[in-house]
Amino acid sequence: MWRSFFDLRLEYAAEWIRSKNFSSVAIQLPEGLKMRATEIADTLSSSTGVPVTIIGTSCYGACDLYVDHDNVAEGLIHFGHSPIPSISNSEKILFIEATVNVDVSEGIEKIASSLPEKIGLLASVQYVNLLPSAKNVLERLGKKVYIGKGDTRLCYAGQILGCNCSSAESVFNEVDCFLFIGEGDFHPLGAAFGVKKEIKVYNPLTYELRSIEEVRDRLLRKRFAAIETAKEGNSFLVVVSSKAGQRRDAIANDILNKLTSAGKKAYKVILEEITPDSLLPYGTDVYVNTACPRLATDDSVRFGKPILTPQEAEIVIGIRKWEDHEFDQIRD
Amino acid sequence: MWRSFFDLRLEYAAEWIRSKNFSSVAIQLPEGLKMRATEIADTLSSSTGVPVTIIGTSCYGACDLYVDHDNVAEGLIHFGHSPIPSISNSEKILFIEATVNVDVSEGIEKIASSLPEKIGLLASVQYVNLLPSAKNVLERLGKKVYIGKGDTRLCYAGQILGCNCSSAESVFNEVDCFLFIGEGDFHPLGAAFGVKKEIKVYNPLTYELRSIEEVRDRLLRKRFAAIETAKEGNSFLVVVSSKAGQRRDAIANDILNKLTSAGKKAYKVILEEITPDSLLPYGTDVYVNTACPRLATDDSVRFGKPILTPQEAEIVIGIRKWEDHEFDQIRD
Repeated sequence: MWRSFFDLRLEYAAEWIRSKNFSSVAIQLPEGLKMRATEIADTLSSSTGVPVTIIGTSCYGACDLYVDHDNVAEGLIHFGHSPIPSISNSEKILFIEATVNVDVSEGIEKIASSLPEKIGLLASVQYVNLLPSAKNVLERLGKKVYIGKGDTRLCYAGQILGCNCSSAESVFNEVDCFLFIGEGDFHPLGAAFGVKKEIKVYNPLTYELRSIEEVRDRLLRKRFAAIETAKEGNSFLVVVSSKAGQRRDAIANDILNKLTSAGKKAYKVILEEITPDSLLPYGTDVYVNTACPRLATDDSVRFGKPILTPQEAEIVIGIRKWEDHEFDQIRD
Repeated sequence: MWRSFFDLRLEYAAEWIRSKNFSSVAIQLPEGLKMRATEIADTLSSSTGVPVTIIGTSCYGACDLYVDHDNVAEGLIHFGHSPIPSISNSEKILFIEATVNVDVSEGIEKIASSLPEKIGLLASVQYVNLLPSAKNVLERLGKKVYIGKGDTRLCYAGQILGCNCSSAESVFNEVDCFLFIGEGDFHPLGAAFGVKKEIKVYNPLTYELRSIEEVRDRLLRKRFAAIETAKEGNSFLVVVSSKAGQRRDAIANDILNKLTSAGKKAYKVILEEITPDSLLPYGTDVYVNTACPRLATDDSVRFGKPILTPQEAEIVIGIRKWEDHEFDQIRD
């Protein structure tokens, strides 16, 4: 399936290496593509004659960009994500987004009748190239279609990240519902948290159309429960990640001060990868996570203790209302 | 037990923070002391008024020194290890070695009769302060006692690390056997690999005296088996760690070239923490580890595939003999 759908553009990558006259290159791949690392290394090194080093650290997004790449090789090719301009502005880095090239027209035509009049289109970067043709089809069938442009963290109109759905927010008032084109719950669930409007999920590989509402509602109930449990807690561990695109010291210090002012014991820990085991030794009652916002939602059950976003911690200490619960987005 | 034996010198640490006029400080602790992190943070911040950030990344030695500490706080206190000069030469770092202060004289006197005439004394940093008094007792009882000085990686005469037993090597020709004072198998096993001479292990807390020979011999048989299995392999993953005190690019590139010259497929991967899961996606038959040498010995069973030191990989491809198998030490 990887082979047939994801376009890794290896000839283009080889040409980039040659054009830069690099004598060494590193490759970074998301977890789902790491199994192809040796094949990619073979292809690139045999076609360019340049040695390839695999960066093996965990990689869940461009937020995981290996910033110390100069210490590994002259150039870096990062696969599977679009750049985050605030951390990846270098001529020595090539992003290859691993887009999926399928024809979406026929499938969109079939589902159009189950969509309302005004539609906001969304996609993860793998599928964002399909949005113009989906828009054409829907407009031909009489729909009003909006593809919003979001924060600087996003590269493309309509694109959403696991931590940012500002492209949806930007057309929120225009649309009756959103249509997300792509796979899995991860991306549309973030958007469903961020915009309080219906999000339909269309998978262009399986042609399935479904709603994400139920998943979102279940998660919201879990967030409510985590906040209620955390209210019993006296000691809080505020977690910061050193990852280039996840580090939010100011937000961590702000919630640390608020917790202390509210009479709680609060500690700050800095980590790279945040795992349940890595937080356990500190013995606090509650975790407040300022790194990837999805740790507190998608992975909460693994942590064995309430793990909250900074906004949720504000609800715990009574300086924010549950009604003002919001998706903790990283904006830049 | 931690409380009673390990001296964390928190008043001294607080005085150091005050003397430097730091407005923030970070603390780094080995895995076994992380459970005391919040207590240490409380003590230091209440006595100095300075906020304390806990560095939560894994820490198994001074080789794990958090080099980006300037990005966390003005000063760093690293607990549990002695400095490695090549990576930790900064006025902003304080090492607190967590030594154990017990009286070893009586215990050593009791075991003296079971020791040969010429003895080399060894210890991990927690117990190295006990060596002078052990030497006094043994000399009073007619023994010849040697406390060797090793590589620049070591701070103290007689000290050994998990990756360096040069203090033993330096008096190898003088002694009939070595006496290691400390706990556990980890440190004396490294020395037993490095020097082909008897090493007795004395635990000054439990008064137990034992030999490490059997553990060493069992491990050597496992190394032989791993090398034999690796001879069937065609693809090799050469592993480099980005940790400040474990990074050995030159050694990695050297064995990469040797493997390629021997007709093997060889790839290089750079990681921070090296775990079985992190190596699995690349699907190679054999791992060659240039990071902490103890991964290939103490942790080999967890990796599910042969994991070799660079010297062992040389045996696999026939450019070194099994008789020349040696302990892979990090020297600087």
